[in-house]
Amino acid sequence: MRASVLRNGSMVYRDDVPEPEPGPDQVLIEVDACGVCGGDLHFAQHSSTLVELAGQMSGAPSLTDGLDLGQDVFMGHEYTGEVVAAGPGTDAPAPGTIVTSMPALISDRGMEPRLYSNTLPGGYAEQMLLSAPLVLTVPNGLDPRLAALTEPMAVGLHAVNKADITPGTGAIVIGSGPAGLAVIAELAAAGVAPIVASDFSPARRQLAEAMGAHAVVDPATEEIFDVWRRTGSGVPVVFEAVGVPGMLDSILRQTPFSTRVIVVGGVMEPDQLRPYFGIAKEAEFRFVQAYTPDEFAETLRQIADGELNVAPWITAEVGLEDVGKAFEELGNPEKHCKILVRPNA
Amino acid sequence: MRASVLRNGSMVYRDDVPEPEPGPDQVLIEVDACGVCGGDLHFAQHSSTLVELAGQMSGAPSLTDGLDLGQDVFMGHEYTGEVVAAGPGTDAPAPGTIVTSMPALISDRGMEPRLYSNTLPGGYAEQMLLSAPLVLTVPNGLDPRLAALTEPMAVGLHAVNKADITPGTGAIVIGSGPAGLAVIAELAAAGVAPIVASDFSPARRQLAEAMGAHAVVDPATEEIFDVWRRTGSGVPVVFEAVGVPGMLDSILRQTPFSTRVIVVGGVMEPDQLRPYFGIAKEAEFRFVQAYTPDEFAETLRQIADGELNVAPWITAEVGLEDVGKAFEELGNPEKHCKILVRPNA
Repeated sequence: MRASVLRNGSMVYRDDVPEPEPGPDQVLIEVDACGVCGGDLHFAQHSSTLVELAGQMSGAPSLTDGLDLGQDVFMGHEYTGEVVAAGPGTDAPAPGTIVTSMPALISDRGMEPRLYSNTLPGGYAEQMLLSAPLVLTVPNGLDPRLAALTEPMAVGLHAVNKADITPGTGAIVIGSGPAGLAVIAELAAAGVAPIVASDFSPARRQLAEAMGAHAVVDPATEEIFDVWRRTGSGVPVVFEAVGVPGMLDSILRQTPFSTRVIVVGGVMEPDQLRPYFGIAKEAEFRFVQAYTPDEFAETLRQIADGELNVAPWITAEVGLEDVGKAFEELGNPEKHCKILVRPNA
Repeated sequence: MRASVLRNGSMVYRDDVPEPEPGPDQVLIEVDACGVCGGDLHFAQHSSTLVELAGQMSGAPSLTDGLDLGQDVFMGHEYTGEVVAAGPGTDAPAPGTIVTSMPALISDRGMEPRLYSNTLPGGYAEQMLLSAPLVLTVPNGLDPRLAALTEPMAVGLHAVNKADITPGTGAIVIGSGPAGLAVIAELAAAGVAPIVASDFSPARRQLAEAMGAHAVVDPATEEIFDVWRRTGSGVPVVFEAVGVPGMLDSILRQTPFSTRVIVVGGVMEPDQLRPYFGIAKEAEFRFVQAYTPDEFAETLRQIADGELNVAPWITAEVGLEDVGKAFEELGNPEKHCKILVRPNA
């Protein structure tokens, strides 16, 4: 079958990938849509550094455990598709049903994330396998392209849940890329106000407003904390969704006393900060990633029930041959937010 | 009167300081004992950097606002003393009563910390002023030298309270200087187990055990997280009480998934860490400082009721003439933990 794979830092089109065969408790789907995640771009550029960093870490599994960068890597973890078949004795939706699932596989070792794999095709392929217990039926009538945004939106719901925002507290969202936009949409859905968001890109600021931000800031001309102080809304919860070095220190310097900072942006490089500022402010950092199965299911429900306005995210659709081009084009925030790969369209 | 003041980075003995006069809502005490705080040593060495850093910070007041390092600086914030007089119309304990208070003064601007001052003598002086509403009577019979340890122990109580430790969760305490020891003692008082603590100094490890640590580790020979894993006690709350650059990154690399880190050690230098590890672990940093008035009062009660064993902390007593020497000697953890200045002994 056809697929786009990561090879030596580039996305390469292949038409010779073996078709996956569903085993027990597995469901085979024909992929309808798969969003290109900023994390995939990042991984394509920095995969060897990420594997090296994971090796320096103990105490928790990493997303790259067992991965061999000398071989092709399958990616694509924001998908929907149509059920084709199921493994022997597997309880699965009927063929033709549109489904999604969080990007994980259940094995003897429990539930393991499946974002990068040498052996298992992901959403940048014609077909892929899901674990039956994780499969969610896309509610009748919801466009599979919108349902494919469940995964990135669930990141926002998880971040907002982790923030434990008390009633009456507003939020600052620094950075309005997909992660920041998901946070804004989920904050708005939770009734948090005001939401003040920033981004250097005018297009992204417009999207931030479409997602529910009450005020948007261009950091080239204004400091978001100055804007916040003008609104006079007390101590915000701050979401860091830029993911470049220096942001955490900048937040600590400017934020009010007793601020909780939810770190969504994944800086891979060494980052420098002054703990002194954290102490002086009694600040709190909560680093977050991904979501729980319940949060994933809840996000799908929110989209299906029209509580999240995700349609404006989708700025292009491409076939498997053009995944590499999509990776390049996503560097321009004026032009693109979310590109969907549609392997079978 | 006599006092020891910070001048150009050194503690200088003076006998020509004007005696303070209590105004309304102020109480004048004759200082009995004042502990030398590690923070004071740090401030003496790095005062200009700290003032500069405070100037780079907005959104919260700093301890050095308005301070002029070109003039003498009064310090000393771990004190007890005997009431001498009170300001006009002030509700205060009778002269002769042994009292303490948290190091703050109440003014038109509210409650302000008073750790460094160009005008108001602190505990390294014969006499000092307290704010009447903050004055606590030392319970009958408690040695004023032990009561002087209320302030550093309250730092431990605050850190433990901020940790929101759930029943069944144990703790790692990295660094067994005064801040780490206070944390250990308050963890033990709260019934937290196991408590695994580390320090390079054998004397400090012995004190850690005396404070209630169930296991102590020499980081020169063992990684505290390896020791923790051997005990098999799940995810600990980690207290960082060393305060040197690199500790936060080291914790993120080694700690289990979903660890809460209470940052007690105040690193003033730029510190480097990989946010990537924080994300991969969904770690949490809570930077903490000081304590609330309620925590301060509760700590005094704990000491008076014998719930905290603070006596082993006191390793020497000096007069006002020898404060400079005490600052030097405290550099040796084998010899000293807490030196008390006794201005009137």
